[in-house]
Parts: sequence; structure tokens; C-alpha cells
Amino acid sequence: MRSIEKVKVTDEFWRTYMKVVRDEVIPYQWDALNDKLPDTEPSHAIENFKIAAGESGGEYFGMVFQDSDVAKWLEAVAFSLENDPNPSLEKIADEVIDLLGRAQQPDGYLNTYYIVKEPGLRWTNLRDNHEMYCAGHLMEAAVAYYNVTGKRKFLDIMCKFADHIVEMFGSENEKQQGYPGHPEIELALVKLYSVTGENRYLQLSKFFIDQRGQKPNYFDLEKEERGDTKPFWFNGSQTYHQGHLPVREQDKAVGHSVRAIYLYIAMADIAEKTNDASLKEVCDTLWDNVTKQQMYITAGVGSSEFGESFSFDYDLPNDLSYTETCASIALVFWAKRMLNLEVNSKYADIMERALYNGTISGMDLDGKKFFYVNPLEVWPVATTRHEKRHVKPVRQKWFTCACCPPNLARMISSIGHYIYSQGESELFVHLYVGSQTNVDIKGESVTIVQETDYPWDEKVSLTISPENESKFSVALRIPNWCKAPELKVNGEVIDVETVVNNGYAYLNRSWKKGDKIELLLPMAIEQVRANPKVRENAGKVALQRGPIVYCLEEVDNGKNLPSISLPRDSKLQAHKEPSTLGGIVTISGSALRVDQSSWTDELYSTREHEKSPIQFKAIPYYAWCNRTPGEMLVWITED
Amino acid sequence: MRSIEKVKVTDEFWRTYMKVVRDEVIPYQWDALNDKLPDTEPSHAIENFKIAAGESGGEYFGMVFQDSDVAKWLEAVAFSLENDPNPSLEKIADEVIDLLGRAQQPDGYLNTYYIVKEPGLRWTNLRDNHEMYCAGHLMEAAVAYYNVTGKRKFLDIMCKFADHIVEMFGSENEKQQGYPGHPEIELALVKLYSVTGENRYLQLSKFFIDQRGQKPNYFDLEKEERGDTKPFWFNGSQTYHQGHLPVREQDKAVGHSVRAIYLYIAMADIAEKTNDASLKEVCDTLWDNVTKQQMYITAGVGSSEFGESFSFDYDLPNDLSYTETCASIALVFWAKRMLNLEVNSKYADIMERALYNGTISGMDLDGKKFFYVNPLEVWPVATTRHEKRHVKPVRQKWFTCACCPPNLARMISSIGHYIYSQGESELFVHLYVGSQTNVDIKGESVTIVQETDYPWDEKVSLTISPENESKFSVALRIPNWCKAPELKVNGEVIDVETVVNNGYAYLNRSWKKGDKIELLLPMAIEQVRANPKVRENAGKVALQRGPIVYCLEEVDNGKNLPSISLPRDSKLQAHKEPSTLGGIVTISGSALRVDQSSWTDELYSTREHEKSPIQFKAIPYYAWCNRTPGEMLVWITED
Repeated sequence: MRSIEKVKVTDEFWRTYMKVVRDEVIPYQWDALNDKLPDTEPSHAIENFKIAAGESGGEYFGMVFQDSDVAKWLEAVAFSLENDPNPSLEKIADEVIDLLGRAQQPDGYLNTYYIVKEPGLRWTNLRDNHEMYCAGHLMEAAVAYYNVTGKRKFLDIMCKFADHIVEMFGSENEKQQGYPGHPEIELALVKLYSVTGENRYLQLSKFFIDQRGQKPNYFDLEKEERGDTKPFWFNGSQTYHQGHLPVREQDKAVGHSVRAIYLYIAMADIAEKTNDASLKEVCDTLWDNVTKQQMYITAGVGSSEFGESFSFDYDLPNDLSYTETCASIALVFWAKRMLNLEVNSKYADIMERALYNGTISGMDLDGKKFFYVNPLEVWPVATTRHEKRHVKPVRQKWFTCACCPPNLARMISSIGHYIYSQGESELFVHLYVGSQTNVDIKGESVTIVQETDYPWDEKVSLTISPENESKFSVALRIPNWCKAPELKVNGEVIDVETVVNNGYAYLNRSWKKGDKIELLLPMAIEQVRANPKVRENAGKVALQRGPIVYCLEEVDNGKNLPSISLPRDSKLQAHKEPSTLGGIVTISGSALRVDQSSWTDELYSTREHEKSPIQFKAIPYYAWCNRTPGEMLVWITED
Repeated sequence: MRSIEKVKVTDEFWRTYMKVVRDEVIPYQWDALNDKLPDTEPSHAIENFKIAAGESGGEYFGMVFQDSDVAKWLEAVAFSLENDPNPSLEKIADEVIDLLGRAQQPDGYLNTYYIVKEPGLRWTNLRDNHEMYCAGHLMEAAVAYYNVTGKRKFLDIMCKFADHIVEMFGSENEKQQGYPGHPEIELALVKLYSVTGENRYLQLSKFFIDQRGQKPNYFDLEKEERGDTKPFWFNGSQTYHQGHLPVREQDKAVGHSVRAIYLYIAMADIAEKTNDASLKEVCDTLWDNVTKQQMYITAGVGSSEFGESFSFDYDLPNDLSYTETCASIALVFWAKRMLNLEVNSKYADIMERALYNGTISGMDLDGKKFFYVNPLEVWPVATTRHEKRHVKPVRQKWFTCACCPPNLARMISSIGHYIYSQGESELFVHLYVGSQTNVDIKGESVTIVQETDYPWDEKVSLTISPENESKFSVALRIPNWCKAPELKVNGEVIDVETVVNNGYAYLNRSWKKGDKIELLLPMAIEQVRANPKVRENAGKVALQRGPIVYCLEEVDNGKNLPSISLPRDSKLQAHKEPSTLGGIVTISGSALRVDQSSWTDELYSTREHEKSPIQFKAIPYYAWCNRTPGEMLVWITED
């Protein structure tokens, strides 16, 4: 399976986000990296590179993974340039890359923390100190920058660093048998392999993956070496960084959710590149565990604040959830890798769920404020409770640990990479996003133009234009939320059921220029329920229309949202509201609300809760907290 | 209003508990205090006194408040001797008291931590170091021991210590203007005043209370003096120990719940003893805040684990609750003090609710294991979540911080003190507990015999026998859970409504020997709802019968208790089960349960939850976790 990355995104929904990233997030982050933001703790990230390059005095400042902020910025810039060429931005990026080159050590090593602060202690704390994590993000950025601009310099810098790491780590006796505490370099090495063809990068990635969790445990050995006698803070458990078991023996997603999924991404990559069916099976087991036992309806994952981690099956509290923006972003990346292994809509459905819900909820519509944590129920005053202090009732300007905003920036800017992929003689359409691309299918150049007003409108049209008439399949994902899809080719109705395989409708025919596919995905308003094992959602219902999960907000529905209940037979209506929240479809209908005035000041009583009929209004979850802050609720009591 | 403490308890319900305390808790704790328990961290509490007395070598060991364990044990012993004379136990207590006397310093000071460990640093950290807290518990024990045995030695020891404290603290310039971080001595000084008549003890208590929270803040001054520059760990806030405001300006219960209520107890005492109406008003405001905004249906209080504290109005999560056993016990004590100020059933109703629910839930029926935390919803595996690690799915053997078991022991052993009190010419009956007492009303000796099978049976009979015919009132509390009480005197029906005032039915008449009051309190099974502002309980119902709050347990109802819902019209039945859990009344009836088999392995779906009719069984909340451990649930979804 080949990815299709050269895609021009024309989609209104995503272009709006891409412009916000281009005009707000990238410039803002550039100022942050250069300590030009008032009233904010300095980042020092660029300054650290200058110090490492010997061009500035001063001390290292920031987190041990500060370099990765520069990396994620460069990667977002690369992806942004792909759709929005910008010579002056590219010039700035080139200058940063030059700086990286000057900071790189003669042996290829590049990490400002160790170069500046602890020069003698490289690779002595792989568990905690993120050297490989930063290297991985820089490699990803270098690959993206090379793919988009064709410039090799950054790629060469990172290959030199990768070669140094290859010399240091591996199964050979004279090498260190370690692996990183925060997976990331594993997937980056596969990308480096993909653009350079250098097998040693793939092998190093595979080594890191297979070495993980083997006995004797590397992190224990390394810890002893450092004279560290403290029990590891995560209850002494290596599950935090998925080092508790060899990866092939893992069957539950555990520990830090971003670490976990970055690892699973690389496992899927290795399974694909090395044709390793048993490793694919492990990936599928973990995929099922994450998406069938540990995922919120928004595709938020990682329900526990302690260790920003997965907890256990069906433990999905709505008000305590951690559901880091980065974890849902990682889920998008992982879904794409699983699709590379097997075209099955179960992966793309989750990718779509994450893209339209739990990822972009992390940013306000202006790209100026961010959620790190994406809960499904917020009662603002309750976030003063100690156990809920990670839940913020409003988005924050920036973070000391600034991982989510640049991660969102790179995901949004590269949305074009997730729409299509291709097999031997198939074009797969995973996402319905307005776009244009040109692909080579069996030697034939084919132009594909997709037009849609997704996720609000049910109509999708694809124009397939091979240079010359040509036989191949176009396989269209039928979203699992759609009960009655309709499909036409050049006006001729196709019986979807007869052509569907693993959730994709295969149109296998001889295509000629201008052939038109019309896909109708009726977006009924759905009342969704959770598996009864999710105790938290007993007797509750969530609203979904198309891929969009809805929520109630105080600004539309008043205070005390849990006092609203939704009768099973409530008539629900969708309304296009072009001037609300950047243009959305809202859901409204009749509901009941407990009448507080019928109650006294008693705390407990045998009186019944009297309910009055009300009209409620729900908005897309991702768009909450863009107006007057207040309560928010996804799961509504069913009446 | 006078307390009536010389009461012989004959009640089956409470005698069972008193015997458990006598035969299990007191001997077990004595072994604990003497480090005779295998597999348990030593207490060292008696040993600390021996070291302080110069009779043993070694180092101080234990918490800074270790002395209070000895105090609470002595107090429990005193109360136990009241109903169950036991010369050998009394001899042991006498010996401990002798030891305390030998440990006491020539100036009257008595605290083993400071005597042994930091001799030069007395009274330098009132905020954290519990010197006055320990003193207060010893004073309470001394008063109890004197009242029960008539022996003065312990009382004299504690008066000498109190005199020392009077010399050290007060409004006079040469004295320290401090007050304790953990209130307790305030209420103890009032008890000391009550038995000795020494006004200086009352005045010192009043000083501590009025000084609290005044500017400049004593704890800040003291902290500076110690060179401590760290911000106070409770988010820098003095609310933790109610030192944020002068007590007369406080209108919300905040901070550590036991500290708060011990303070409110003393405030009520001072209001009563000094006839301070404005202070009573403050107490009433705080009472209303606690009982109408911050109390669980079990009379558990303090919903937050962080700081073992109150949180904010209507924040009553069922699975995260802290609801320390000691806090509910404190609520019983406070209710009694409020009744001393004003006879109103709103106080006694809460006292009863705490006694039959959130206090005794802290101990198993054998008196061998204890809950510190009393949640209203337990899913055992979920207690592995970091935020819920304070919630234990089973009772624990003993605690390093062993405050709750001895506190329960003293409450249970002194249950007789809470049943009656008397005014000028009224006998008040607050609780329905089988008992005998003799009181002097207007110079006439009156014997009162109460017989009942409360809390299971609706019948209460009281035989009133004055030596000579005499006119006075007997005022019987009509519990707020009882909708249709019936009352007879010598067979003659009294119209309750016509004689009720502030929740008490006043029988004002001329009484002669053997007059019989029959009170019928029909115990309907009630479906109780919470104020709609308690978001946590939206759409939920709890079962109550008489004063007993019920719960579902996994052992009776299978796994996944939240999947059970209770139709509004369910027929509910009460069953006397003499051989279950020490003899209880259970509630059973028809309910619905989501049929897991009708669901697939999907996490979310538009399918409805299919429900099947089931028979459920509920047991008294206090008795949960005395059989096979598992899930427990108080608030049930209403269907």
C-alpha cells in the first residue's frame, strides 16, 4: 500500500483550520521559540541551539525535551508550505536548519540539553531524558521538509545523527542494548528509511521495538548504573513506557498514552515494511483494546491523569478524563499506519472520529488557545477539586510543556496525507475532504477531484480523470455511522451492499476522463449509547450526526446540564448555522429539565423531580468553549 | 439544657456494637498501643510515654499525634466501663493514667513528642504539630474517666496541664496569641470547665475560638519565626484549618472536615455556655451549609481527599468521596451540641442519619476491620485509579494513622449520652434506643424505660415512672423520614400534629408511675432523591427505610450495578432477615437490568440498551462489605 501525500486540500472545513495554523499557530509558536511572547515563560528553544553552536553564551533552559518544540515547528512549517507556499517562512526555516547544522557535533550527535548541560552524560538515562524522542521529531521534520521542498540539508543532518545512533545502539555486543523511554524515534527511523532506502534505519527501529521489555530490563540496568535507587514513580511499574513486557506479548494498551501509541505506530510500520504478520496481529489486538475498551466517543484516549495514561477496560469517566490532545492525534497517525497494513474501515472510522472530535477540540477556532486535556463533561467550579485540577474549564494560551499545539499544527497541515492511499490497482478514499490530487495507477496518470461540504452535508462527489481510459478500482469508505449510503457512477445507481468489502465500496471498472462518482451519506441524527460495561454512561445517550459528536453548552442551555434529560422519542432537528462558530450544523429538539423551583432547599427528599419541557441546542463537541465559558456535557441522561 | 448521660443501654442494635467494642476493639487497640500485633507497624504510643517518664530508653516513634491514640483508648474504656463494669480493664487504665502522671513535666506539660524528641521546641508549630490536639483528647478522656469512675487522678493531671496552657496562651501581651491547627482542645476545655467549674478553662477555649483567623495571622507569624518559607501545602490556603477568617465571619464549611466540625462543636459549646446568640447564629449558618449543601445521604461529610476536606456546595461525587468515618462521628457530636442550644429535630435527624449510616459503616460487624473512607459507590477495580486510591474496596485491619477505630469505639460506647436531654421541665427523647435512665425533673426522680426494636421496627414504647405524680413534658422527636407517626399515651390516641413543635411532639401532662407512651413510626420504603443541584445524582434514586440508607451489593445482585435501574412504580418489600448480617431488614423488589448479551463488543452504537426484569436485593449501607467483597452502589438509576 502506498500513501498519497501530494494532495491539494480545497475543503472548506479543513482549509479554515490550515489557514489558522498558517496565520496564527506557526507565527505564534515562532515567537514562542524565540522568547518574544510577553507574559509567558521563555521557551529558550532556539537560544539553546545557539548556545550549542557556540554562538551564544548563557545556560541551557527549559525541559529536557525542549529541542522537540523546534522540530515540531519545522515539521508543521514543512506541511504548511505544501499547501501554502511561503518563501519568507521557508527562508526562516532554512536558517533554523542551518543553525541545527552548526549545533551538530562532529560525530553527528545533536541534542542541546546534553551538548550544553551534561556533555559527559549522553545516553545514560534513556528512560527519562528524551534524547531519542527529540532526535525522532527532528527526523520526522527533516523528512517532511525534504519531501515538500526537495532540500536535502536537514535530511543530511538527521541521517548523520541517525548514523551515529546506529553506531551506538543495536544487538551487537559492543553496542548499547537500550531503547527510548518515550517512543518516537522508532517511527521516525522508518520514515528516514522510506526516503533514503537505507536499511540500517529500518533495522535500528526494529531493534528498538524488539528489545523493548526484554529481560534483563534495560531501564533497570541503566538506573543501577546511575546509582538511582528510588522506585520508579509510576508505582514502580514499567507499564508507564510500555517496557513491562516484550511488545509481542502485550495485549492491553497501558501507560502513558502518547508513548504507547507512538510505539504502536512504529510496530505497525515495522509489520508493514518487514511483512511481519505476527506483529500485525499484536497491533490489531492493541487496536481493538484501545478502540473497543479504552476510547471515549470523541476518540479521546488515556483516561487517567496520573502518568497521562491508559487505565483499564471500560474505565471512561467523563469528568476526570485526561484524553490529551496529542493522544488523539497519535490515534490518527496510528489509524493511517493500520490502513497501510490492511484496508478496513474500522481503522479509518476511528481516524475520522479523532479528526473531527477529540483532536481539534484541543484548539479554539482562532488558533490562539489550547486544551491539553479534553474532558467530556465540565462543571467549571468542579475543576477546583484536586482530582480534577488537570481539567481546565477554558483553553489556555500556551503551555510550559508545549506539545499539543505544534502537534495539532502538523496534523492539520498534513491532513491531505490521510485522505487517499493506493494499492496495486486500487485508489482508496478514506476521508471525505475536498481535494485534488494526481496519482499514477498502473502507469496511468489519474487526476482525482473531490468536492464535498463534509462533515455538514451528505453529498460527496469525486471526479476521476485518467489521462487515458484505464481499468482500476476506486474504493470508497462507507462510514460506520451511515446506515443508508447511496452511490452512483455517472448517474447510475450502484447497490452499495454488493460492492462493499471490509467497509469499503469497490468500484472496479474502466475509468475515463471526467467519470463522476456521487456518494450520498445521509446524516441522520443518531442517539448513541455506550457498551453497558461503561458504568459511567449507564442510562445516558450522546448525539452524533455524521462524524460529529455533539455536546450541550451552558451558553445555549443554561446551568446544570445534568438536569436535562432526553426522551427517547424526542424529535431532533439539524440546522445549518453558517454564522455560528465558523459555520456549523446544530442539533435542537425537545427535552426535559428538572424544575429547580419545584424543589426546596432540602438536600434529600422523597419528592419527585418535577420536569418541564424545554428546547435544547447541541453544538459540535470540537467547537465547545468558543463563546462564554461554562458547563459542557456530552453524555445526556435518557428519559 | 442538660445532657443526660447516666443511661443504661439495653437496645439490641447498639448493645451488639458495644459488645464488639468491649470484646474486640478495646483489647485489639490495647495490643496495638503496646506493639503486640504481629505484621503491623508498631504504634509505640505507650512506649513513648515510658520514655517520657524516664522509664525506658530508645527514641520517640510514630506520628506527632501518637499520644492521642492513648487518649482515645482511655476515653473509650471509660465509656465502656459505664455500661460494662470491668475491674481488670479499669486496673489497666489506672496504670496507664499513673504512667501519664509520671511522664508529666513539673510545669504540667505533657506531650511525649516534644518531651522526648524536641524538648526545646514546645509550642513553636501550633499549625502542624498537634500538641493541643493531643492535650484535648487527653482532657476529654480524663473527664469521661472521672465521670464514670469518680477517680480524680487523670482529671487532676489534665487540669495541671490545662493550667500550664492557660499560663502560656491568652490575650494578655505576655502570652502567646496562638490557637491550634487542629481544633479539639477548645471543646475539651469546655468539658473540663463543666466538671470543674473553673471559668479559666472556658475563657481559654473562647480565646482560641475568637483568636482564630484574626489578623495578623498567627500561623504566618509562627511560620516566619521558624524560618519556614514554603507556601502552605493546601494551595497556600488557611482554609485547611479554618484559619482564613475570624470564625464569626465564616459561613461555609471549608478545609479539613474533622478539624472544621471539632471547631464548630466548640463554637456551639461556647455559644451555649456564654449565651452568645450571634455565635449560635454562625453555628446555624455552618450547620445549614454542611447538612443542606455538603452532606451525603449517609451523613458522610468531606467530599475531597485532598486535605480530607470539604469541597464546595453540591459537590458530592459518589465514587471519589472522602467521607472520613471520623467526620461523621464529629457530626454526631456537633448535632448533640446544637440540640443543647435549641431543641429542633433538624439536628437530631442528622445525628440519627450519621449514627445508623456513615459512622458505623466504618467498622465491620466483627469490629476487626475498618474503613477510613466511606464512599457511596465502589467498583473495586476502579480503586486502582490514582484519583481513587484513597477508596478501599474492603475494610483494612488497622491504620498507621489510627484515628477512626478508637473514635468509633468512643462514640458507640457513649451512645447512651445521645438519647435524652432535659430542660427546666421537659424530658427530650432524641433517639429511639432501648434504654433505662433515671432523671431528676423539677426535684422529682423519674425513671424512664424505653423499649424498641429500632431501627428495624416501627414500635417504640416509653414507660415514664416518677416517684410521685408530677407535671412535666415529655418531648419526642418525630423523625423527618416518618410521614404518618402515631402516638398514644396509656392507650389514648394523641393527634401528633397538634402537639408538634420544631419536630418534637410535646406531651405536657401530669405523669404517674407506669404511664406508657406508645409511638408508632411507620417505616415505609422511601425512594429518596437529591436536590437537583447535586449533578452527580441526576436521574438517580436512593432507598431508605426508617433511618437506614440502603445499598446494592454485588454479592446479592451480580456485577455491574450501574446497569440496574429502578422503575418508579416498582413494588418494594421489606424482609426481616434475622440471620443475615447480624439481623437486618432487607429491601427487595423488581428492577430492570441492561442485558449485556444483547450488546456486541462495540464500545458505541445506536442500538438501545435492552433491559430484562430482575429481582434486586438491597441491604443497609452500614453493613456492606461484610460478605464477599465486590461492587457497591447507593444511588440507583431511576427508570
